[in-house]
Amino acid sequence: MPISRFYKLYLSPNRKHVKVLKNLLGFVPGNLSLYRLAFRHKSVAQNIKKGVKNSNERLEFLGDAVLGSVVAEVLFKLYPYEDEGFLTELRSKIVSRNNLNQLGRKLGFDKLIEFDTKIMNTGRQGSLLGDAFEALIGAVYLDKGYDFTRNFLVNHIIKSHIDIHTLEQTETNFKSKLIEWCQRHSKDISFDVIENQEGESAKLFTVQASVDGEIMGSGKEFSKKNAEKLAAEKACAALGI
Amino acid sequence: MPISRFYKLYLSPNRKHVKVLKNLLGFVPGNLSLYRLAFRHKSVAQNIKKGVKNSNERLEFLGDAVLGSVVAEVLFKLYPYEDEGFLTELRSKIVSRNNLNQLGRKLGFDKLIEFDTKIMNTGRQGSLLGDAFEALIGAVYLDKGYDFTRNFLVNHIIKSHIDIHTLEQTETNFKSKLIEWCQRHSKDISFDVIENQEGESAKLFTVQASVDGEIMGSGKEFSKKNAEKLAAEKACAALGI
Repeated sequence: MPISRFYKLYLSPNRKHVKVLKNLLGFVPGNLSLYRLAFRHKSVAQNIKKGVKNSNERLEFLGDAVLGSVVAEVLFKLYPYEDEGFLTELRSKIVSRNNLNQLGRKLGFDKLIEFDTKIMNTGRQGSLLGDAFEALIGAVYLDKGYDFTRNFLVNHIIKSHIDIHTLEQTETNFKSKLIEWCQRHSKDISFDVIENQEGESAKLFTVQASVDGEIMGSGKEFSKKNAEKLAAEKACAALGI
Repeated sequence: MPISRFYKLYLSPNRKHVKVLKNLLGFVPGNLSLYRLAFRHKSVAQNIKKGVKNSNERLEFLGDAVLGSVVAEVLFKLYPYEDEGFLTELRSKIVSRNNLNQLGRKLGFDKLIEFDTKIMNTGRQGSLLGDAFEALIGAVYLDKGYDFTRNFLVNHIIKSHIDIHTLEQTETNFKSKLIEWCQRHSKDISFDVIENQEGESAKLFTVQASVDGEIMGSGKEFSKKNAEKLAAEKACAALGI
């Protein structure tokens, strides 16, 4: 064992924290402060410079991109005969907030994240775990580089915790996704049939999905259900859900 | 010079193609077939297996992700005191179809891409150059790995061809972007003021942006112009422009 690793694990004042991270990650972190930052939610961040807070949001931006790239390669190689539409959809299921939140919970992030407990009552804690997961990927990337991060993600996360083939079968339910998001953010959601049009052989429905009274998406289909689905999908895209 | 490189450049039957690529990329490509694929538009693709075409679309999916990750890191390091909102917006300007199309043009991709000339008259050639650029990044990544691709992008592309600081100043004009997209895809676009609401001290306007009669976004603001802008921005998001 190299001396620096020995020092970190057994002698340093941070050894407890290093051991927790080693158990979580399967490797001894290099730059500890990056990992601390990854688990610091904006609700407890301090201003470190005019307008700049030491929260995990910048790391989340970086980690989101690295994760997207690694998952893209995994799917590209796993499904050599599927087109880019299939790959895009499956990737968005894997990196969805919902899936990453579950992953963060499984990995025990709730015990690691520093956050202001007050936000737990406001409904704004929604993506705390998933955001921290992405920030952690950003930290691993800055600490260890791309190839290490890719191997960590593939061998330690994807193989053990993500069931790609099950996700492949799951159809994304945009309507539930939108309703869930509105509940979490205390917003009103309504689906309104604004037009019934007689087509040549069937009836066409136009449905608008409105959030807090503002139209976020609309869909025109031969069934009310499908028109709602399309409206919800567009609203999800417009809201970046 | 290693023998394989010498062979590729001076003896192989593909030496002309290798030289073109070397001039373009600044390095001798390893797996030539990947680079050929990167420049093959779907309009000339053949079915290589049931439902699978040998076009550049899968490589584009991969390259888009790798490019997003490299640009994220570049911006993360270039702007240590900007928040993730700033980084996200600037990245989306850099990797916008418009910007990547210009880049493809500058790099002379129009002479390299194989495509069916018939599509030039249908308005569907819009993102041919930008798509091929992303596919090329996918090819470089599979051929040479992440670190090589990152260095290639930073030293050969970003430093010479992308003026990040100018893009930082440019405000994205979503209205022009939407109108341009509609023209290219032969779709009707309309901005309709659907509500004039008297606020406490000023008038509120609600504007809907509709594409081919379908509402794609709406905005409520104190000026008609700003309401249009917001509606256009949402429509761009909903249409994935």
